[in-house]
Amino acid sequence: MQDWNPALYLRFANERTRPAAELLARVPLVGQPARSLHVVDLGCGPGNSTELLVERFAGAQVLGIDNSEAMLEAARRLLPQARFTSGDIATWAPEAGRCAPDLIYANASIQWVGGHEQLIPRLLSLLAPGGVLAIQMPDNHQEPSHRLMREVAQLPQFVSHMGDAGKVRADILPIGAYYDLLAAPQRDAASVDVWHTIYQHPMDSAAAIVQWLRGTGLKPFVEGLPAELQAEFLAAYERRVDAAYPARADGKRLLAFPRLFLVAQRKP
Amino acid sequence: MQDWNPALYLRFANERTRPAAELLARVPLVGQPARSLHVVDLGCGPGNSTELLVERFAGAQVLGIDNSEAMLEAARRLLPQARFTSGDIATWAPEAGRCAPDLIYANASIQWVGGHEQLIPRLLSLLAPGGVLAIQMPDNHQEPSHRLMREVAQLPQFVSHMGDAGKVRADILPIGAYYDLLAAPQRDAASVDVWHTIYQHPMDSAAAIVQWLRGTGLKPFVEGLPAELQAEFLAAYERRVDAAYPARADGKRLLAFPRLFLVAQRKP
Repeated sequence: MQDWNPALYLRFANERTRPAAELLARVPLVGQPARSLHVVDLGCGPGNSTELLVERFAGAQVLGIDNSEAMLEAARRLLPQARFTSGDIATWAPEAGRCAPDLIYANASIQWVGGHEQLIPRLLSLLAPGGVLAIQMPDNHQEPSHRLMREVAQLPQFVSHMGDAGKVRADILPIGAYYDLLAAPQRDAASVDVWHTIYQHPMDSAAAIVQWLRGTGLKPFVEGLPAELQAEFLAAYERRVDAAYPARADGKRLLAFPRLFLVAQRKP
Repeated sequence: MQDWNPALYLRFANERTRPAAELLARVPLVGQPARSLHVVDLGCGPGNSTELLVERFAGAQVLGIDNSEAMLEAARRLLPQARFTSGDIATWAPEAGRCAPDLIYANASIQWVGGHEQLIPRLLSLLAPGGVLAIQMPDNHQEPSHRLMREVAQLPQFVSHMGDAGKVRADILPIGAYYDLLAAPQRDAASVDVWHTIYQHPMDSAAAIVQWLRGTGLKPFVEGLPAELQAEFLAAYERRVDAAYPARADGKRLLAFPRLFLVAQRKP
């Protein structure tokens, strides 16, 4: 493994990009000239993770895949040197005639896609020999932040609007199950490394925690509601967050945020 | 307790050095010329963590502190460019006339020292302005690996020999308590970052897990026993480990190993 590059690392000390950098730091692609590599950022969003890939693998052919046109446009503006195309994580494969990827990198994306038992082996099978599959996903379904969303969704005034809001995100498997999917002998993996990091983000207030989650986990809950109920939902949720995340010695709230990391390399 | 065995400890160097490197990667000392820095490795062991410090901070004055002469000798052989002196983590302070350290780095050492409520603020107070305290410690007291040691120690044939074996290692506080110790306004910290990483080490067998733990957590249990009971203790422990860590798809056992990380920087 390459050692960490502190200067690069600290440039992305920001809460959401830190896991992306920590995932990349564990990708054991060394020795190859970077310009010969084919790298895929699966679920690239606005390109902030893709930027890490472009910096680490100078001159590589980097392809970003996302199903949001808004995200793809932002990514293209950020990184004109990379290619960005629309696609679905669940079914993506290299276009006919294109090289098999040396790295499939999926940062905070496959939790929106179901069927990990099929998806993970499929992604591994798409790699070139010696290629690496690197995945990070939030594993916070059992944290107070997420339990309390589901609790509020069950209140009588909201429950009839909720539909499948609690099920938009796929179930995360136990970490040993991911290891099994990657390390089973028929997968031909040379190495498999799985771990959790539980970050503790100091947040200014309960409202700041709610704000953070509005961009991701809360989205399907709030979007299911008529406009006039959204504020009520958020207020009920914020009261519970306030109680579940007490103020620390400096007045901040520590938001525990477990993330699951998977890195597997195919045999050369 | 008997002195440490550097060879046994280093048999798992890769697994043990990864957390040391990940801790160092989060130390936000950038911009200063490294040669002007004073760096202390508190509980340096055989010098494998010190080596990371020497590499990252070229030309810095690096001092390793340990209370094991065997470890200090191994460290001196490994790194003639650093200074190694005998000392106790609980009471260590820079010698009179020496500079306050810019970095106090304690990798897998303070779990052997009690009184973290006093120790942590004391270490922070020893730093130069802008200095960094960086700590990593195993937090596996509630893992099956460690629960089962205590369970076996309670068996009738062992219990009378055990004394305080279960208490050699200090209690680890909840992570929020460490945050409070570091972030309380009177500490004058500019930033505090705390997190857990739960590594999953693929081990060849239950026996390999026992072997790994003989170098650290099992030491006080086994050493308390007369020679003729040690093998019996280890066999009883290994049977329980075998049941608690089932074989994965590739036949390996995944040893979950939670580690707690603390990084705080003083105001400049």
